[in-house]
Amino acid sequence: MSKAEKINWITEMHFEEATKAREILSIYNHPNEEVQQRHDEFIENSIANYYLPLGVAPNFIINGEAYTLPMAIEESSVVAAACKAAKFWSSRGGFKTHIIGTQKIGQVHFLFHGKIAALKSFFNAKKQDLIDSTAPLTANMKKRGGGIIDIELKDKTDLIESYHQLHLTFDTVDSMGANFINSCLEQVAKTLQSMAENDEVFLKEQHPIEVIMSILSNFVPQCLVQAEVRCPVEQLKTSGGMSGMAFAQKFIQAVEIAQKEPYRAVTHNKGIMNGVDAVVIATGNDFRAVEAGVHAYAARSGNYSSLSHAFLEGTEFVFQLKLPLSLGTVGGLTQLHPMVKWSMELLGKPNAKNLMEIIAVAGLAQNFAAVRSLITSGIQKGHMKMHLFNILNQNNASDSQKEKALEHFKDHTVSFSAVSDFLKSNP
Amino acid sequence: MSKAEKINWITEMHFEEATKAREILSIYNHPNEEVQQRHDEFIENSIANYYLPLGVAPNFIINGEAYTLPMAIEESSVVAAACKAAKFWSSRGGFKTHIIGTQKIGQVHFLFHGKIAALKSFFNAKKQDLIDSTAPLTANMKKRGGGIIDIELKDKTDLIESYHQLHLTFDTVDSMGANFINSCLEQVAKTLQSMAENDEVFLKEQHPIEVIMSILSNFVPQCLVQAEVRCPVEQLKTSGGMSGMAFAQKFIQAVEIAQKEPYRAVTHNKGIMNGVDAVVIATGNDFRAVEAGVHAYAARSGNYSSLSHAFLEGTEFVFQLKLPLSLGTVGGLTQLHPMVKWSMELLGKPNAKNLMEIIAVAGLAQNFAAVRSLITSGIQKGHMKMHLFNILNQNNASDSQKEKALEHFKDHTVSFSAVSDFLKSNP
Repeated sequence: MSKAEKINWITEMHFEEATKAREILSIYNHPNEEVQQRHDEFIENSIANYYLPLGVAPNFIINGEAYTLPMAIEESSVVAAACKAAKFWSSRGGFKTHIIGTQKIGQVHFLFHGKIAALKSFFNAKKQDLIDSTAPLTANMKKRGGGIIDIELKDKTDLIESYHQLHLTFDTVDSMGANFINSCLEQVAKTLQSMAENDEVFLKEQHPIEVIMSILSNFVPQCLVQAEVRCPVEQLKTSGGMSGMAFAQKFIQAVEIAQKEPYRAVTHNKGIMNGVDAVVIATGNDFRAVEAGVHAYAARSGNYSSLSHAFLEGTEFVFQLKLPLSLGTVGGLTQLHPMVKWSMELLGKPNAKNLMEIIAVAGLAQNFAAVRSLITSGIQKGHMKMHLFNILNQNNASDSQKEKALEHFKDHTVSFSAVSDFLKSNP
Repeated sequence: MSKAEKINWITEMHFEEATKAREILSIYNHPNEEVQQRHDEFIENSIANYYLPLGVAPNFIINGEAYTLPMAIEESSVVAAACKAAKFWSSRGGFKTHIIGTQKIGQVHFLFHGKIAALKSFFNAKKQDLIDSTAPLTANMKKRGGGIIDIELKDKTDLIESYHQLHLTFDTVDSMGANFINSCLEQVAKTLQSMAENDEVFLKEQHPIEVIMSILSNFVPQCLVQAEVRCPVEQLKTSGGMSGMAFAQKFIQAVEIAQKEPYRAVTHNKGIMNGVDAVVIATGNDFRAVEAGVHAYAARSGNYSSLSHAFLEGTEFVFQLKLPLSLGTVGGLTQLHPMVKWSMELLGKPNAKNLMEIIAVAGLAQNFAAVRSLITSGIQKGHMKMHLFNILNQNNASDSQKEKALEHFKDHTVSFSAVSDFLKSNP
């Protein structure tokens, strides 16, 4: 079926007013047909564009350079929080970052019921052949400075009977590398099986290698970046009258709670991801991959815990965030989606390492703003102002009603019923 | 600054061709100014719309009813996988779901340096007053059947010296409830502090209650849904010649690996979230909240593990997924974003519980399709076909080149360099 046929079929089947349903889809299409076709080809059965608001957060000073971050996100307060944190730290030395590692991982999972010693010596003899068999796939990546770093054989029979892995590490340079890694793994698995079947010595064992599956891992604890802010404690004093030391101590307590209490840690890290994902999406990266890797990293000790740490170092307040981030600035949507290209240009065309740094900063800034709100005015003060707009729109408030409501709710608690009541008595 | 002023400022500062940069933004705006303004008001500093492709996946049979799922996602193969899994199970009894719980959680985190027994008896005496103080905030929610379920005092001094919590449970009915919960918590915290300050008996203790912060938790292990498929093992035989039992056994092994090996578990669950997030976004829900809650749940035992389980029950193959999902079908963007309203209508205007069930099914379907590919043809076969489109577009291939390439790569491995070479020799 063509796109139009699919739309007809679906709207006739599921909508009371099918014509109206089609009109909404049509008006959300891009006016340029060629551009729309490109968007449609990103996925299967595409029938329209889902709009995510794209906001911008200026005034980020990262390693001495000024950035404006593109943020694609539907939640209010996130961009405002980023802006505030960026401005706050711009006059206190800005954000500093460094890359801890860029290694990515893929695995061939297989069963082998024979003697483990025989498997080991077979693997050691054939390791280079396994790597060589991927040469046609890795040619382009090698030119860019990447490729397969190593293959290890891992005995996992403590987990499952007869379970072994080929554990591969990769450098995928400026690409996220999912397709590259999976293609290499499938080739390595094929080579492993066919070499085993054709090897006379190994054959004698009479135990074939049964490959279960070959797939990259989104757990990337070696693809890691750190972002940091620091300033003299006295520079933290608040306009509300809190001393720098009182603020620092309360901030550190709040982060400590997020380190030790999982119910708080999950929300604390969710706030970090508000900033991270907004830039991940705007730059055409895969936020499910990033989310999975980050939360598993937060749970790596066995206790789900905060990704950020705050402490005093002499008279300085230090706030740090370590994040595993597997990102690409080439491949995928990065060259295809016009708004992604736009976002990349806004960021000065970063490479993958730069983008890791920028996105870690987005997470740290978001976390700083959230914890600062929580320990001073509370999270709802800022949040409810934007939420008020949404409730007003939901009630179809006029412009003059909106103005009055903004004034009124400066010192009244926002709730759906309070706003509805206010609009009824201010028609 | 107005939106236009912001755009001017940013494009002049960061772009070589500022005029062109402004044109791209402008053409991605909605043609109806009022509608665009609504989108702009969702967040701060909004300058354009980021397009996510919205696809549809028909043929889902959930508890006997037919659904077409709206999926907002940028990754190729996800919608195709959903469609295939939906069709496969539609002739094998469809998906079955049930809600295990809908409880949400919020906490007031505070320090108290006095006698714990005094705190306990103070709390017990004042518990009802704490609840009563939220009455103006909970009025509307109570009408809808929800509200505060309970408040508990929790001694957390084993984690941090003097650390205690008020741990609140909520029923937020059809709203996700973040604003509601946070507003209630801030009120409860305020009431707690002022009651303590004004209570003569408690005052004698000379130890004030120091509230650190009040905030909902995105860890929602009691807001849980299960989705399931099951069929006689022989109905699993593949067109590639695998018997039903061979398929079932290999499938169960693959899921067992994801239960026991974290590197695999993270990717396994990431695949589940491809399906989950696509529907979460299309229905205007907060995917960072869902992601954080789901991955923390996957790590709850101390070992990060698969969210799905596969097993044999007599001669039946059973595949199950349990997911914590905090969702809303009222409030937030649900009534404001035209494409969200459209998606909700496509789904037959579900309530929050229905939506939990639908989204858990999206996750299970995605997981089934991914594991099936992995243990049969490999993940790359399906993935690379769509990826081929993207590489062709990236190389500005003509329509006739695209046709030839599709034919050629039916039995050749897709890689960026292979496609580039093919295009060069087929101009």
